[in-house]
Amino acid sequence: MRRIPAFRGYIFDLDGTVYRGDRLLPGARETIEGLRAAGRRVVFLSNKPIDTRESYARKLRCLGVPTRTADVINSSFVLARYLGARSPGARLFVIGERPLLAELRRAGFRIVANGDRADWVVIAFDRTFDYAKLTGALHAVRRGARLIATNPDRTCPVEGGEIPDCAAMIGAVEGATATRVEVIVGKPSRITLDVCLAQMGLRARDCLMIGDRLETDIRMAREAGMAGALVLTGVTDRRTLRRSPIQPDYVLRDLRELLAAR
Amino acid sequence: MRRIPAFRGYIFDLDGTVYRGDRLLPGARETIEGLRAAGRRVVFLSNKPIDTRESYARKLRCLGVPTRTADVINSSFVLARYLGARSPGARLFVIGERPLLAELRRAGFRIVANGDRADWVVIAFDRTFDYAKLTGALHAVRRGARLIATNPDRTCPVEGGEIPDCAAMIGAVEGATATRVEVIVGKPSRITLDVCLAQMGLRARDCLMIGDRLETDIRMAREAGMAGALVLTGVTDRRTLRRSPIQPDYVLRDLRELLAAR
Repeated sequence: MRRIPAFRGYIFDLDGTVYRGDRLLPGARETIEGLRAAGRRVVFLSNKPIDTRESYARKLRCLGVPTRTADVINSSFVLARYLGARSPGARLFVIGERPLLAELRRAGFRIVANGDRADWVVIAFDRTFDYAKLTGALHAVRRGARLIATNPDRTCPVEGGEIPDCAAMIGAVEGATATRVEVIVGKPSRITLDVCLAQMGLRARDCLMIGDRLETDIRMAREAGMAGALVLTGVTDRRTLRRSPIQPDYVLRDLRELLAAR
Repeated sequence: MRRIPAFRGYIFDLDGTVYRGDRLLPGARETIEGLRAAGRRVVFLSNKPIDTRESYARKLRCLGVPTRTADVINSSFVLARYLGARSPGARLFVIGERPLLAELRRAGFRIVANGDRADWVVIAFDRTFDYAKLTGALHAVRRGARLIATNPDRTCPVEGGEIPDCAAMIGAVEGATATRVEVIVGKPSRITLDVCLAQMGLRARDCLMIGDRLETDIRMAREAGMAGALVLTGVTDRRTLRRSPIQPDYVLRDLRELLAAR
């Protein structure tokens, strides 16, 4: 494996990369501190739309990693920014949890109920997904609403296994409506990367994406011509890596390997 | 349009063909009586897995059409027969409503809960579908269960509109698991047609399928080399018919046109 050069900016995935559940992964704190001390820009990027940026920043601080809200980008924030630039104040029917609804309301959107006309149906990872929400999405699409989703992940790792993620909600709505989702803003979309780069004030070629998922973290980096480092502390093992068509520039046993190059 | 010849057997779709909601469609009773009086075999075929054959037979009797349970075939019955021949006594995790669960238990299957090992995940039109059922399906597939579904319909017409049907539940499970459903037993599957033909003791070429849906009723007939008559009392109008790649042998304004040929 090649030696890792220094970059001006570092985009860290969260779950499986910086922490796992409620514990920091080995070397996460020292590495992030070391990079910052060396003048590097650091942002955290999650595809999860089930919590706000504030709560991810709070969690990182509790774990000993000083973090401002502005240093955290997640898919609900990216979606609110994306729609805000294209359909400000739009009427949204939302399949999603409370923090997403709060984020969208704060961004000036109007959340509508089943039966009301909507401009967009927003589809997110939703552990309270049910038949009534599915029916609301169908009715909104029949009345002209377009489809947008937060993230393409099939499952979300949890203590002792995994649970269905946003791809399930997308499949349900597409199945009922025969309409494809137009935009999925989360990783690996360039939409999300552009929000990160704007936050750091850097270009893709100046940055390194570090994450544990080939099909989101590493794919986003590769498609943007950005360097990508896979860390083996999350969902991907060496066997999966060998078989994947998506290959990272670097493979890290843990984050400490980034410090050698700071 | 060609004059309709007489057939030995008639397979009638139910909703949109024989009745709509709780009212018989024009000519339904006289036509079915007339065909039976002329010695023709008649069966009723529905893709709906949300009621039992007994209750569809009861409904037809209440509407004035004498019907035995054996004259009604629906997708939950076909699924129970299909699995019964291949995996007798199998362990099933079911996304479906109570009548389907009852039908499967009567057929000797064991219904398992989320977390238990299952041989198959059965996916059906389910107005009580929720995140817990979706999670149970994911866990069953991860432990080796195969996927089978009752029917491919996207939506089900109801008073004043439509609601999500089985394709939504299929999309959700396929989205979470990245696994395709192996078999969908309902129309237009040959599996369903074979159950109807066995019930009548006739071959496909001796029968006419009458229904209001091109992509299920008429497609099933065409693929089996059987005659198909589209009746315009349900979801399909002449404009949709003109644009469809699936074309029936006959088009009926209502069922009475069948009697001319009895």
